[in-house]
Amino acid sequence: MDPSDAGLLDPVSAGSAAARATGDAAFVQAMLDVEAAWVQVLADAGLAEASAAAAVAEAADVARYDLASIAERTRDGANALIPLLADLRAATRETARAAGADEDSAAAAAAAVHRGATSQDIVDTALMLVARRAGEALTADLASAAASLAALAEAHRGTLCVARSLTQHALPTTFGLRAAGWLSSVSTAADRARSALAAAPLQWGGAAGTLAALVDSLAGTGLTPARLTRALAERLSLTDPGAPWHTQRLPVTALGAALADVVVAAARVGNDVLLGARPEVGELREPTSAGRGGSSAMPQKQNPVLSVTLKQAAIEAPARLGQLYAAAAAAGEERPDGGWHAEWSALRSLIRAAGAAAEQLAALAAGLQADPERMRRNLALTGDLVLSERIMARLAPHASTPTASGKAAVTELVRTALAGGESLRQLLRAAVDPAAVSDAELDALLDPADYLGASDAFIDHHLETYRKLTLHD
Amino acid sequence: MDPSDAGLLDPVSAGSAAARATGDAAFVQAMLDVEAAWVQVLADAGLAEASAAAAVAEAADVARYDLASIAERTRDGANALIPLLADLRAATRETARAAGADEDSAAAAAAAVHRGATSQDIVDTALMLVARRAGEALTADLASAAASLAALAEAHRGTLCVARSLTQHALPTTFGLRAAGWLSSVSTAADRARSALAAAPLQWGGAAGTLAALVDSLAGTGLTPARLTRALAERLSLTDPGAPWHTQRLPVTALGAALADVVVAAARVGNDVLLGARPEVGELREPTSAGRGGSSAMPQKQNPVLSVTLKQAAIEAPARLGQLYAAAAAAGEERPDGGWHAEWSALRSLIRAAGAAAEQLAALAAGLQADPERMRRNLALTGDLVLSERIMARLAPHASTPTASGKAAVTELVRTALAGGESLRQLLRAAVDPAAVSDAELDALLDPADYLGASDAFIDHHLETYRKLTLHD
Amino acid sequence: MDPSDAGLLDPVSAGSAAARATGDAAFVQAMLDVEAAWVQVLADAGLAEASAAAAVAEAADVARYDLASIAERTRDGANALIPLLADLRAATRETARAAGADEDSAAAAAAAVHRGATSQDIVDTALMLVARRAGEALTADLASAAASLAALAEAHRGTLCVARSLTQHALPTTFGLRAAGWLSSVSTAADRARSALAAAPLQWGGAAGTLAALVDSLAGTGLTPARLTRALAERLSLTDPGAPWHTQRLPVTALGAALADVVVAAARVGNDVLLGARPEVGELREPTSAGRGGSSAMPQKQNPVLSVTLKQAAIEAPARLGQLYAAAAAAGEERPDGGWHAEWSALRSLIRAAGAAAEQLAALAAGLQADPERMRRNLALTGDLVLSERIMARLAPHASTPTASGKAAVTELVRTALAGGESLRQLLRAAVDPAAVSDAELDALLDPADYLGASDAFIDHHLETYRKLTLHD
Amino acid sequence: MDPSDAGLLDPVSAGSAAARATGDAAFVQAMLDVEAAWVQVLADAGLAEASAAAAVAEAADVARYDLASIAERTRDGANALIPLLADLRAATRETARAAGADEDSAAAAAAAVHRGATSQDIVDTALMLVARRAGEALTADLASAAASLAALAEAHRGTLCVARSLTQHALPTTFGLRAAGWLSSVSTAADRARSALAAAPLQWGGAAGTLAALVDSLAGTGLTPARLTRALAERLSLTDPGAPWHTQRLPVTALGAALADVVVAAARVGNDVLLGARPEVGELREPTSAGRGGSSAMPQKQNPVLSVTLKQAAIEAPARLGQLYAAAAAAGEERPDGGWHAEWSALRSLIRAAGAAAEQLAALAAGLQADPERMRRNLALTGDLVLSERIMARLAPHASTPTASGKAAVTELVRTALAGGESLRQLLRAAVDPAAVSDAELDALLDPADYLGASDAFIDHHLETYRKLTLHD
Repeated sequence: MDPSDAGLLDPVSAGSAAARATGDAAFVQAMLDVEAAWVQVLADAGLAEASAAAAVAEAADVARYDLASIAERTRDGANALIPLLADLRAATRETARAAGADEDSAAAAAAAVHRGATSQDIVDTALMLVARRAGEALTADLASAAASLAALAEAHRGTLCVARSLTQHALPTTFGLRAAGWLSSVSTAADRARSALAAAPLQWGGAAGTLAALVDSLAGTGLTPARLTRALAERLSLTDPGAPWHTQRLPVTALGAALADVVVAAARVGNDVLLGARPEVGELREPTSAGRGGSSAMPQKQNPVLSVTLKQAAIEAPARLGQLYAAAAAAGEERPDGGWHAEWSALRSLIRAAGAAAEQLAALAAGLQADPERMRRNLALTGDLVLSERIMARLAPHASTPTASGKAAVTELVRTALAGGESLRQLLRAAVDPAAVSDAELDALLDPADYLGASDAFIDHHLETYRKLTLHD
Repeated sequence: MDPSDAGLLDPVSAGSAAARATGDAAFVQAMLDVEAAWVQVLADAGLAEASAAAAVAEAADVARYDLASIAERTRDGANALIPLLADLRAATRETARAAGADEDSAAAAAAAVHRGATSQDIVDTALMLVARRAGEALTADLASAAASLAALAEAHRGTLCVARSLTQHALPTTFGLRAAGWLSSVSTAADRARSALAAAPLQWGGAAGTLAALVDSLAGTGLTPARLTRALAERLSLTDPGAPWHTQRLPVTALGAALADVVVAAARVGNDVLLGARPEVGELREPTSAGRGGSSAMPQKQNPVLSVTLKQAAIEAPARLGQLYAAAAAAGEERPDGGWHAEWSALRSLIRAAGAAAEQLAALAAGLQADPERMRRNLALTGDLVLSERIMARLAPHASTPTASGKAAVTELVRTALAGGESLRQLLRAAVDPAAVSDAELDALLDPADYLGASDAFIDHHLETYRKLTLHD
Repeated sequence: MDPSDAGLLDPVSAGSAAARATGDAAFVQAMLDVEAAWVQVLADAGLAEASAAAAVAEAADVARYDLASIAERTRDGANALIPLLADLRAATRETARAAGADEDSAAAAAAAVHRGATSQDIVDTALMLVARRAGEALTADLASAAASLAALAEAHRGTLCVARSLTQHALPTTFGLRAAGWLSSVSTAADRARSALAAAPLQWGGAAGTLAALVDSLAGTGLTPARLTRALAERLSLTDPGAPWHTQRLPVTALGAALADVVVAAARVGNDVLLGARPEVGELREPTSAGRGGSSAMPQKQNPVLSVTLKQAAIEAPARLGQLYAAAAAAGEERPDGGWHAEWSALRSLIRAAGAAAEQLAALAAGLQADPERMRRNLALTGDLVLSERIMARLAPHASTPTASGKAAVTELVRTALAGGESLRQLLRAAVDPAAVSDAELDALLDPADYLGASDAFIDHHLETYRKLTLHD
Repeated sequence: MDPSDAGLLDPVSAGSAAARATGDAAFVQAMLDVEAAWVQVLADAGLAEASAAAAVAEAADVARYDLASIAERTRDGANALIPLLADLRAATRETARAAGADEDSAAAAAAAVHRGATSQDIVDTALMLVARRAGEALTADLASAAASLAALAEAHRGTLCVARSLTQHALPTTFGLRAAGWLSSVSTAADRARSALAAAPLQWGGAAGTLAALVDSLAGTGLTPARLTRALAERLSLTDPGAPWHTQRLPVTALGAALADVVVAAARVGNDVLLGARPEVGELREPTSAGRGGSSAMPQKQNPVLSVTLKQAAIEAPARLGQLYAAAAAAGEERPDGGWHAEWSALRSLIRAAGAAAEQLAALAAGLQADPERMRRNLALTGDLVLSERIMARLAPHASTPTASGKAAVTELVRTALAGGESLRQLLRAAVDPAAVSDAELDALLDPADYLGASDAFIDHHLETYRKLTLHD
């Protein structure tokens, strides 16, 4: 039975650009790209033939390789580069020969591959490349999502809804402020992800992190390893870290944390949509598209599958981040004995989950339907009581009942109102001298739209902060 | 780019039987098997045509399906069964027609598929089937590993080595006792895994866990849903739970915990091998096989890759178990809004990691090479000092130095010995009256082989406990 | 500043019996109890004076010890037993003297303490004792919760409510079945916890797991270490494992997993209450008690704090279980170099969280208020559409519209009904020939109470399963 | 039994400054400081009496409060601020009265407390304060550790040792480079922690994140909430975020990740020390101090307890970071229903673990003893074979044996050498024409000190990078 995973157990990413950008094919292509770039750097420096670089470049196409076979041989050395390298060398010999090289030149081309490198150099660098490449769509999707959320925040600046705390109605707020809060997290996460991706470093250290073989081979050439390494980083569009980081894994944890932040920010939106899309709440509706969210057995259902999959990601990503840190914390000596190996699947999962979440979020934010009327009705469910904080502050000094006065009186009235019967307004009217607080004043005090505090200013703050960020090129 | 994962980032399982038994193909086959078994149950009960069951059975072959296409459609409904079901129905129509059915019969065969079921029934049951099937090799490998470890424990009952506590030399022990300890964990884990796998339940509840559609369709037939459900469980060799458990996820957590125990037990062995295989320690050596553990760049190296991958699994499995529990704890209502979906990849990872770890462990245990001579030399590194616990207990009453007596004297002698120069035996001889403790008695007291406590009895205990277990059929 | 934690950051357990049973005082008392029991065992075997055992027993009272001082000294040896032991020996000398012992006898009493044991023996055993002791209330609370849930399941067998899947209305069900599902998980978890707690083993192995010092001291007495160990286990009401398990940590993982299951089962209930207690849903209400859940600033609020804290525990416990497994998987040699130490706080957290969750759940289940009327109204929100599964199965053969027939017709009618305007019943009446389906038949088909499938049987199953279990003595 | 934890189960932090800075007393003091600062801000703005601010300031002393009692009342509202606030108001009334205030003024002082705030404002801000305060020692300790590591890197620039990869000897390196690698991670982590701590924001939003009550109370004063909030942030030395972040939890995740990075960086050092301190390796020794690491039962042992506790932290922190992210991802609406509550213990644990790890690391780095002679002997264990990479590259062109030439010949010689008998040098001498490679050239090629690649440059790079950072003020 084919052991590969097509994504069937990972609905958030199945069929996504993130899945394609992070599959084993993408990883192998990235490893091939690193190997090819290095031979090109060697050739540019006169340390290999241009024809060798050309042969490797042609051989460095994932379509040439049998990934199942590579997988079969991966356990032997506990990494996939070892079998891939054998295949790449064979393929290079072929492409060289096909380009007219004689046996010696073909062998030389094959021998130039991986010169002075170690498998960790290739695997670490390739994973950073995978992150960078998947990061293109990720940052674009987050920028798109942020733009949609910013539009929602602006559009619904005046859309009253109820603020919920510990599931209960607390105070009035606006849907615009809620959306601005979403925007705040999403744009912060996008900014962090963009920075972390931009900082993704090359790994280049040779068998023990000293580049000894490379230095040895440069004797008499006037070249320094630093110059070649810099050239390689430039060619791969990665950061040159200045030194290898074989067992210093903080570049990996920083990237992982930023990616997990993306999932957290997206999940935050999804959580609110999962609530808002409930029939009993009805404030929000996910965008529909052909096939999405329907149930053939129960055609009345429209499942909020975008948000469901965001929640799926929100449960997985923290565990994977924990794995990544646990792996990093197990590093030691000059190459870890398992800690390094445990990073890979975790890092890939985080790249994939963040990318897929960004994609789902972009779709969700772009098409989210808000129902201001339903928001207003839900706010009204709690009636005047949703203003009890204000009532307490403003009317306690004037309130008295047969049995209490001040705050105690207001508390009593609230309890009476909660028990049903008269509205809080009616009760207050009876308990507060109209000379102190007129009917009009009372109405104004009980108007939710008049008790929104600094919500507008906060929306402005989130929008301004967002607009100052460059989330995507 | 093909989004699928061939296992390149998971060296412990790449190329393993566990990977094949848990790949998406195996999962799809399991879903197909559940659907086919159900139509057969319906047919056996007279609720579907035998020809329909035959058509479904023929259509229920994973080789007929395009997993990439199913993955593409998985996000729409947040599970893979929905697109698979559409394809299965189409395939059933084809197989029915190919068997000579007319359009109505073919349509009826297709309509019989999934009757009264919900996607969760199929996905949950299929994952349990995957676990059961992967469990065959897993339990066999653990039984094999346990047998090898039992043999090691027996063979090395008298092989002296040093017991290490917090990395330091503590006391003498035997390698047999260490191996018996490995056996204890491995056989316990094997027993737990076998029980948990044997308890893997069918899931059958219909859209809302009431089997309403099924009950509706049974009106007037005299059949009960319980009878059909039991028949389905038997056909699939799963446990009949008596009621659906759609949002009661403890069957999943129990299975996951047992699988994680397997990884823990295997890692425990691997940890000791990683230490023992170090050049500075040299007590243990992993079995070699063509290609495994070698380094082309550094041909002198023989990497303990079996143990390295066990450690990899040991870092991943706890995180995945945490994910599984977090997902289970997010269950609610009649189908969770993300919690369920986050279980799948975690459960599959645990099945795969446990299976792969069992396979690696079986190879490791079968071929582990112990070096009693090196063990003895390492024990000797600490010299007589490794018996300081005994010395303290037995000789303190008789010891005196110019500056101290009793325990203080022994402590002084130990410090002097640690500082180098005279051996502890020499120092003791000078400090203890030969009339109280003769030379021969002193030698006996300082003989590590004479200070092994109940190690033999403990080995026996572990062996007996192991022998009482049935780890594999 | 006092470094201790009183529970302020752990609301689920703050002020709970579980917190008291698992605090450092309880842990220290447990360590003292182990030490005292061992000296008593020695005395019973004639290996120590009865007066020594009496002196230790008197000294073994946590009230005598300065926990802050012990904490200060804990880092030096990386465990708390080392400083406690020094203090216990000093205290024993005092109690012995106070009881009239001379200096030699007092010293002998002090020397008898911890004879042949190692700090791991005491710490591991004490944590098992803490689990067992906290387990008393835990199992009692779970038994109480299960009884309450069983009563709810029985009482609400006929209480219609809507089944929700992925947040959306799916089908009718009963609140009794939902409660029976809760019962199923809670009673399963209770049963597992009870078994795991009953299996909690003694740890007794001496410095290197060989009991060498003990065996040495038994020379010539005719006593075996097995006999003494068994006596100790009996005295402490723990299981005798037959051999030490210093680095075989599966007893710990099994206990941790069972405790995490308790949190999962409790959280499952809490999740449903968090939804049901929302003003927009209004189906459930937490029991109120003086002070609980109120908000002074917003007196109208009644926060479902029991369920909120269950959710808190549900997020923490999986992470702690992951930590426990990670720690266990890091075990090696004869005492792990950090893996063991990382278990303690995780295991204690799990005991505490499970105990606190059980306590909250018992209160929640005992006083949960269900509102059948509101459940019925919520069910009615979706109208006849909540029966679309049944309509599809039963009326498709008879349905036709101007543009479609069969399933397509029903789907069309459902969509029309969803769009508003006529009810599904009205639309169906027009589309289905009254000769095929009479008005009465149509009404019956659209009666939610008539489409509950096997819900009653499933309730019975869960109740029967529960009743067969002994959850608490 | 007292439910509080004194730290006995957390050896890395027991007795540490980090424990004192993060205990419940420190948390309560921080909450009190926030409340007092707010009343002072109100007073400065003319919104409260100066005497009220003075009364609150005096009441805001943790020594006045009974933490056990607060813990008892914490569950009722699921946070500790609610009971503390009640006690603070009562205390304020007392201090006001004691300062001569009449009942009305005393009541007004009490009423000024917490005006317009919500419990989340206080709890979130207080936790940030705790982080900042604990961060003082944390950053100082990391700066100290980095300085020690930098000195080690410089001092051991030329100290040869073996580079180990997957536990096996790979190539020569220097201990200076290894120490420089430690420095790289530690200084990076210190820099991240310092930035994250400096960014720790104030939380100020009122009951629903709109500051409605505050805005209401400012009507007619000409004051803006932004101005008061800024003043509060300044007073508390926290960052002013510009808007509340009640359910936007990325400030918390960023802090948590930076703290976990500290643990990772420290553990990395500890891992190498745990290996180096083994008797069989003997390259490193932890600093000793009175009482630390000793074993009374086995006086010859010197346990590397600093590193053991770093490993403990390394297993706990990743799990806690996972919990923190899981909690953040569960946020929703205007105050989360459990997600928020599950953050607290995780964040506190991370602050504490990072602080304690920094403290242990500082001690470890300051006193670490390296044994260059032992490093050289260990390097020599593998003999010339440790240069096989170089031999392969440099001598293959010149090597021939009776059965092979080139790389195959070198591989054959390596295998022969591994099998024992002649040294690789002897074998090479026989296989390589002295005319091509002279004896002197051969000796130079086999000199480990001549094959260190860019290790010096990498040390310089790490030192320069470190020197550019400001790790502590």
